[in-house]
Amino acid sequence: MELTEKTVQKNYVYRGKIISVRADDALRADGKPCKRELVEHPGGACVLYSEDGKILLVKQYRYAYGKTIYEIPAGKLNEGEEPALAAARELEEEAGIRADSLTLLFTMYPTPGYTNEKIYIYRADIGTHTSAHSDEGEFLTAEFLPEETVRRMLESGEINDGKTIIALQAYFLSSKD
Amino acid sequence: MELTEKTVQKNYVYRGKIISVRADDALRADGKPCKRELVEHPGGACVLYSEDGKILLVKQYRYAYGKTIYEIPAGKLNEGEEPALAAARELEEEAGIRADSLTLLFTMYPTPGYTNEKIYIYRADIGTHTSAHSDEGEFLTAEFLPEETVRRMLESGEINDGKTIIALQAYFLSSKD
Repeated sequence: MELTEKTVQKNYVYRGKIISVRADDALRADGKPCKRELVEHPGGACVLYSEDGKILLVKQYRYAYGKTIYEIPAGKLNEGEEPALAAARELEEEAGIRADSLTLLFTMYPTPGYTNEKIYIYRADIGTHTSAHSDEGEFLTAEFLPEETVRRMLESGEINDGKTIIALQAYFLSSKD
Repeated sequence: MELTEKTVQKNYVYRGKIISVRADDALRADGKPCKRELVEHPGGACVLYSEDGKILLVKQYRYAYGKTIYEIPAGKLNEGEEPALAAARELEEEAGIRADSLTLLFTMYPTPGYTNEKIYIYRADIGTHTSAHSDEGEFLTAEFLPEETVRRMLESGEINDGKTIIALQAYFLSSKD
């Protein structure tokens, strides 16, 4: 069966600073008309940085969940920005680390039912320590944690962020090879 | 430093079928006023089901990406629905499998910068085969794939869905213990 859906008309219902939202008129795979809700997002990039058996995590308040959570350094892509450069920029801004090179682990679709965001997940393990200089209005703390501590946090459910879980599991899978 | 932000006023800019969107007036951690964009979603549940070294994946067209992608069976929570029941329901609807018991692997925040969705990721490996009966207007194909095939798909970047990557990594991590 052909599963493709077709856009009949794009309808913007909100144009915001970080996201825009559409409620499109579309055709389902069986040709029947339907509505498709969609959040447009420019995409994001993040990087798992580790050094001497320690993993870098940042703690940041997330308004959507009303609490502070652990994540790897991350940020959204500027227009036309190459994802690896965005990940390196965020690593330096948030934690003061200039990575020598980044390896792409995954291109992740965070929740494909309603957003077109792609999150590029990188790994780096060699870098130079400089100084952090977060974006204006962005408040976070960066810390290096021993990998066994991070493994326990992952197993206990203390880490919930999707991109961070993926990067950490990739780390632990590779270290078991 | 106290990182908490405060809501001054909730402003709904869109109320849709699956998502609603707010552009709130809020106070940053330093007390300065800011806007916070937020997608409200009821939450989702999904389950990695495996049997005899084969893993169940569904192929589904995702309008947001304009293509068909691989995922584990998943769906959104009905109001007040217990996540494990939702995951079991979706497994039976999408693949015709009634799981004996489900184990929670992760509660995932798919993209915490702008959505409050929580995705409950389960695993199951004992079940009864019944018959699939998808929601009206939902078109997908379910297939069992050998775990080595799935591992190659994961490593080659053929699988992009966040919850699916997380569930598969957990599967391969546990099988290495």
